[in-house]
Amino acid sequence: MEKIYFRNDYSEIACPEIIENIQKYSRGHYVGYGEDEICESARNKIKKYLGDADCDIHFLVGGTQANTVMIDAMLKPWEAVASVVSGHINVHEAGSIESVGHRIEPLPEHDGKMDPDELDKLCVVHEFEHMTDIKGVYISQATEVGTVYNKRELLALREVCDKHNLYLFVDGARMGSAMMADGMDLTLRDMARIADCFYIGATKNGGMIGEAMVIVNDELKPCYRRLMKQHGALLAKGFILGIQYDTLFTDDLFFRLARHENEMAMYLKEGMKKLGVKLLFDSVTNQQFPVFENDIVEKLAEKYQFEVWEPGDKETTIRFVCSWATKKEDIDSLLNDIHNLI
Amino acid sequence: MEKIYFRNDYSEIACPEIIENIQKYSRGHYVGYGEDEICESARNKIKKYLGDADCDIHFLVGGTQANTVMIDAMLKPWEAVASVVSGHINVHEAGSIESVGHRIEPLPEHDGKMDPDELDKLCVVHEFEHMTDIKGVYISQATEVGTVYNKRELLALREVCDKHNLYLFVDGARMGSAMMADGMDLTLRDMARIADCFYIGATKNGGMIGEAMVIVNDELKPCYRRLMKQHGALLAKGFILGIQYDTLFTDDLFFRLARHENEMAMYLKEGMKKLGVKLLFDSVTNQQFPVFENDIVEKLAEKYQFEVWEPGDKETTIRFVCSWATKKEDIDSLLNDIHNLI
Amino acid sequence: MEKIYFRNDYSEIACPEIIENIQKYSRGHYVGYGEDEICESARNKIKKYLGDADCDIHFLVGGTQANTVMIDAMLKPWEAVASVVSGHINVHEAGSIESVGHRIEPLPEHDGKMDPDELDKLCVVHEFEHMTDIKGVYISQATEVGTVYNKRELLALREVCDKHNLYLFVDGARMGSAMMADGMDLTLRDMARIADCFYIGATKNGGMIGEAMVIVNDELKPCYRRLMKQHGALLAKGFILGIQYDTLFTDDLFFRLARHENEMAMYLKEGMKKLGVKLLFDSVTNQQFPVFENDIVEKLAEKYQFEVWEPGDKETTIRFVCSWATKKEDIDSLLNDIHNLI
Amino acid sequence: MEKIYFRNDYSEIACPEIIENIQKYSRGHYVGYGEDEICESARNKIKKYLGDADCDIHFLVGGTQANTVMIDAMLKPWEAVASVVSGHINVHEAGSIESVGHRIEPLPEHDGKMDPDELDKLCVVHEFEHMTDIKGVYISQATEVGTVYNKRELLALREVCDKHNLYLFVDGARMGSAMMADGMDLTLRDMARIADCFYIGATKNGGMIGEAMVIVNDELKPCYRRLMKQHGALLAKGFILGIQYDTLFTDDLFFRLARHENEMAMYLKEGMKKLGVKLLFDSVTNQQFPVFENDIVEKLAEKYQFEVWEPGDKETTIRFVCSWATKKEDIDSLLNDIHNLI
Repeated sequence: MEKIYFRNDYSEIACPEIIENIQKYSRGHYVGYGEDEICESARNKIKKYLGDADCDIHFLVGGTQANTVMIDAMLKPWEAVASVVSGHINVHEAGSIESVGHRIEPLPEHDGKMDPDELDKLCVVHEFEHMTDIKGVYISQATEVGTVYNKRELLALREVCDKHNLYLFVDGARMGSAMMADGMDLTLRDMARIADCFYIGATKNGGMIGEAMVIVNDELKPCYRRLMKQHGALLAKGFILGIQYDTLFTDDLFFRLARHENEMAMYLKEGMKKLGVKLLFDSVTNQQFPVFENDIVEKLAEKYQFEVWEPGDKETTIRFVCSWATKKEDIDSLLNDIHNLI
Repeated sequence: MEKIYFRNDYSEIACPEIIENIQKYSRGHYVGYGEDEICESARNKIKKYLGDADCDIHFLVGGTQANTVMIDAMLKPWEAVASVVSGHINVHEAGSIESVGHRIEPLPEHDGKMDPDELDKLCVVHEFEHMTDIKGVYISQATEVGTVYNKRELLALREVCDKHNLYLFVDGARMGSAMMADGMDLTLRDMARIADCFYIGATKNGGMIGEAMVIVNDELKPCYRRLMKQHGALLAKGFILGIQYDTLFTDDLFFRLARHENEMAMYLKEGMKKLGVKLLFDSVTNQQFPVFENDIVEKLAEKYQFEVWEPGDKETTIRFVCSWATKKEDIDSLLNDIHNLI
Repeated sequence: MEKIYFRNDYSEIACPEIIENIQKYSRGHYVGYGEDEICESARNKIKKYLGDADCDIHFLVGGTQANTVMIDAMLKPWEAVASVVSGHINVHEAGSIESVGHRIEPLPEHDGKMDPDELDKLCVVHEFEHMTDIKGVYISQATEVGTVYNKRELLALREVCDKHNLYLFVDGARMGSAMMADGMDLTLRDMARIADCFYIGATKNGGMIGEAMVIVNDELKPCYRRLMKQHGALLAKGFILGIQYDTLFTDDLFFRLARHENEMAMYLKEGMKKLGVKLLFDSVTNQQFPVFENDIVEKLAEKYQFEVWEPGDKETTIRFVCSWATKKEDIDSLLNDIHNLI
Repeated sequence: MEKIYFRNDYSEIACPEIIENIQKYSRGHYVGYGEDEICESARNKIKKYLGDADCDIHFLVGGTQANTVMIDAMLKPWEAVASVVSGHINVHEAGSIESVGHRIEPLPEHDGKMDPDELDKLCVVHEFEHMTDIKGVYISQATEVGTVYNKRELLALREVCDKHNLYLFVDGARMGSAMMADGMDLTLRDMARIADCFYIGATKNGGMIGEAMVIVNDELKPCYRRLMKQHGALLAKGFILGIQYDTLFTDDLFFRLARHENEMAMYLKEGMKKLGVKLLFDSVTNQQFPVFENDIVEKLAEKYQFEVWEPGDKETTIRFVCSWATKKEDIDSLLNDIHNLI
C-alpha cells in the first residue's frame, strides 16, 4: 500500500486544470524564450492582482534559480545580502549565492523572521570599509517554518531598507499559502508596493514548474533577461511556464489552491493541538512542525510520508506539509493514528 | 492564417506520447529531486543504449544550464575550456561560463568543427604559466551549423585530449539528429566510449524539457548533484524530467523522432538543391541554411516562420529547422513557393 | 608632538636590516616573478626552519590576498571552508572568499579558536547534498584576539580534518608572535607536519611587505603560480619579497623581532594586570585588549595611538599592539599614565 | 660575467631617489591602508599633472591586479569588456577577468590598437540579448607592441564609447613611455579628459612597485576601496606606495625617467635600422622588436638578456626593453655585436 503523503507540496505533477491546458495547447507552435502570447496573457493576469503595478514579470523554473538570479542582479561585487541564519539561501542552496560572488550576512532568526533593528545595526557596523556593504535584504513569505510577515512587520523592514538604501527581495516559493493565511492583512498588491522584487511560486502551489519574478524597482529591470540567459534560467520553451500562470491566475485558481492547503493544515494543526501535541512553531501556513517521542515517529513513518525536521535523542520534530491535493480524510486518518499512539 | 513553422525545433510543447504520460502520471506522488522511480527507470533505459556503460546520468532542464554546470565541474580556477569560436558557449550564452569564473579559449571553426592539430598547438602555447591551463574541450554534436563529427574525427580529438590530459565534453542538444544523420558511423554507445561526458537533448527532440547529462569519467562524478543544486539546476519535481526520458527511450521513440526530423530536412535540402538554391553549409541534420536574395526572403517570410542566420546587403542566409512535428506537405508547399520565387 | 604608536604592527616601513639590504641589492638586475636567486635563497633558508619539509614556498604581498588564493586553490565550486565567526576572512576581508565563489561556513569562536567537536558536527550536518561540502578549515595562528593553538589543540583539529578529508590552512599573518609566545610548544617544523598549508607573515613582523605561503600537501601544489597570476598576486619584482625573507631568515632575525614584540606586550600586560586593568582576552602575543572607562580612553587617546576594539556605553575595549620597533620606555610611559588615570 | 640586461623594465629594485626616500621615511610611523600623509601628498602631486581633474586616485601593487579590480568595478554580471585579441587581459593574465565573472569580447588588433568601427559593430551585434552587453573598453597606452594612441585615435574611441555608453579604461603600465614618445600629442591631462579611468604605472618606470589608478567618471568612484580590499589590493602599508609616487611626481622625475627609456630605445632602434635589421613593429616607446636569424639570436643570448617574442623556424623576433637604468654604452656594445653578426 502506498503511504499517505505529507512529505512536501511538490510531489504531484500539477493540478488538473494545468494538465488539461498542457494537452489543449499541445497542438500549437509558440515563439521561444517567454516572448509568446501565452506568457503575455499570464503576465497581464498577474498584474491585475498587483494593482496594475508598473512592474516586469519573468518566469523562472525553480526557487534556487530565482533567488540566485535576483540577488546577482541586485548586488555589485562588494555588496552583500542580509538574511536570517535559517534563510533558504543561507542553508539549503549549496552555496549558490556565493557561487556568483556574493556574501550573505547572517542575522538571528525569530520564528523564521528578521528583526528590523538588528538589520539596522548590521548596516551601521558594515559601514566599515573592510567589510561588505549591505545592499540587499532577503526574506521569505511564508518563512521556512511556516510563519508570515504581516503588514506592520513588512513595513518596518521597508523603513530600514529606505534608511540604508537597500533592496527588499521576498522569496515567495510559498507566497500563495502566505497570502491566504488566517488573519493575513497583506495582499499581492501590497507586496508590489512594499517590496522591490519578489516571486510568486507555482511549483509548490499546484503548478508543474515555475516561479514568477515580479520586479517593481526600475533599477533592477534592465537586462534581466540577459542575466537569466547567463544563469541558464531563460527557458527555451517559455510558453510551458506561461501555461502554468495563465491557468493559475484564471478564476482565482492560484488562491483557491492555496486556501485549500491552508485549510487542511489548520485542520491538522487544531486536531494536533486538541490531542496535546507540541508544535515547534506556530505556523499559520501549509507546513506544520509537531514534536513526537521517537518511537511514535517510527510508527507514523510506517503509514505516512513526512520529513524529519530536527532529530533528538528522545523527541523528534517532524514536518507535515499539506498541498492542493491533500484530502481531509487523510488528515482524519493521521489524527486518529496520532490519538492512538500518544 | 498561422504561418508554417520552420523556425526552430522547440516550438511545440511535446510529442503526443509524452503529453499522454504526463496525464497518466498526474495522479501519483513522487519523491523530489530526481530520486524517484520514474527517473530511475529512465536512467536504466538510457544506459541500455550506452552499452551499459558505468556512467552517472543526471536530468537537467536546459542546454545553457547543462553546459555551465558541466564546465564548472571540469575546471579548476586557473583552467580553461577550448571551443571553436562559433561554439554556443562562446557566443550565445551571455557569458555563462565566464560568470562562474572560467575562460573559454577560442579556436577557429571548420564547418562548425574543431581541428585536432589546432587544439594540440593551443595546449602547447598555454603551457606558459601566465596563461590559463587548457583542461576541457567543448564541442557540439551536431554542430551549430548542422554538421557532425564522425568516428574518425571524434577519435582524433580524443587522442589530443589524452595527450594533454583534457576532458572531452559534448553538447548534445541535437544529439538525436546527429546520431540519425545519413552515413553517421557513431552510436550513443560510441559516444560513451570516446567522450568523458555529454548530454542527450530532449527539448529539441520531442520532449517537453530536459537534457540528460551522461558522465563517464569517474573524476567528474562526485558531488555533481550538489553542483546542480548550487546552479539552480536540480529540479524539485525531477520526475517530470524522468517522464520525458522514460517515454523517449521506450520503443526507440527518441530515435524515431530524430529520424523523422532528418528525413524532412533531407527532403527539403534535396528539393532546394534541385532548384539550384545555394546552401551555406552541407548540413546532414535537421537544420538547413539556404541563401536567398533579400526580396525572396521577404516574400517567404509572409507565409513561413524561420530565422535569419546572416543578413547581407543583397543576399541573406536563413535557417529552416525541421522538428518531430514537421509535415511533408508543408515542405512541398515551401519548395513550391521557392520554385515560384526564384 | 607625535603620538606614541600602539596602533598596529604595520606602521613602519621595515626593520633596519631590510632597509639596508634594499639598498645593497639596488644596483643589480633580477629575473622577474619570483624566479630569481634571492627568492631561491630565501626559500632555502625558510625550509631549514621547516625541517626541510617537502614543500613549495611562494611569496605573496598581503594577507587577504594570501587567504583568497589559497582557499580558491583548495575548494571545488560546491565546497566550503569552515572558520570561526571572528575569523579574518569571515569579517574583515570585504567578502573576498565569496568573491571567488566560495562559501565560508561559520563556527562559534572560543577565545578566537575553533572547537574540533563543533567542526566534526558541522561536517556531518553538511553531508546533506543541498548544503555545501566542507573541505577546508581556516584558522589563524595567532588568532585575531592574540591567543594561540598549542600542539594538542592543533592535533585535535588535524584529527577531525583527517576523519573528514579536509585541508587545514593556517593564516600566519602573526605566525612569528605565535611561535615565540610564552609556553608555546609548537615550532614552524611542527606547523609543516600538522597543517596542509600555512603562511609566515613578514608585513607584521618587521618586513616591508610579504607573506610566505608554505604548501605541504602535494594536492595543493600544482599550478599555484598560475592561480597567483590570475589573482594579481604574482609580483613582477618578486625579488623584493625575496629580500624580505632572505633577510628575516638570516641569523634568526624573524624570531628575534617576534620575541621582542612579545616581550614588550607581556611587559605591558603584566603592568596593566598589576594596576588592576581588566583584559578582555588572555592574549599571549603582541596584541593586548584592555577595558577602560570611556573617559580614560579619551585621555589616553591624546597621547597614544591605538584602535578601539569594542565600544560600549560606559566601558570600551581598546587594542594596544607592540611591534619590533616598540620601545620599553614608551610602555613605561603608558603604564604610568594609566596608573595616574585610574 | 653578468649579461647585459635588455630583458624588461622591471628588473631593478627602483631608481636611486626612491631608495633614498625609503631610507629617509624608515624612521616614522604611518597610518595604514593608504590614508597616510605621504599618499595624500602623492595624490595631490599627481592631480597637478591631471589639470586638477575631479578624480579619485588609488595606489595598487601590480598591473593584473589593477586591471581586474577596475574591470570588476565597471561591469554588471551580464556585461563584457572589449579588448583587442593581443590585449594583456586577453592573453597573459591567466584568466583573471573571467575569474571574477566577466567575459572579454575580443576584437582584431592593428599594430596593437583597437579600431573604433570594429568596436562600434561589436556593440551593435551584441544588442542581441543572448549575448553579453558590451559596457567596457580596455586598451593599453603604450600597447603591448610599443605603439601609442594619439589624440585623434583616442577621441575616435571615445566617440564610440559615448554612442554606446561604454567606459573607456586605459592600462597605463607603460604610460610614462607613451606620454614621452616622439611626436606624442597627448598629455596626462588629456588622458583625464578623454578616459573614464586609467592608471599610471610605476613598476616599469623606475618605481619599486605601484600602479596609480585614476578614476575620473563619478559612477566608478563609490566603494572602490572596498573592492580593492576584497581583491587583496588594499596594501596595509599603503605609505610604501605613497613614497613611490611622491618621489616620482616631484621635479618631473617620472617623466625624466620615461624620456631616458625612450631616448635609449630610439637610439637602439635607429642603430638597428641603419644596420638593416627588420623590426616587427614600428614601436615609438621603450620596447623594440627586431627580427634575426635564429643563429644570431643564439649568439646574442650569450652576452645579452632579452625575451623571445615570436620564435620561428628560421627567424625569431626578440624583444629588447630599455629602462630608466639602461646605459648608452650598453646599446653601443649591442649595436656593435649585431653589426658583427649580420
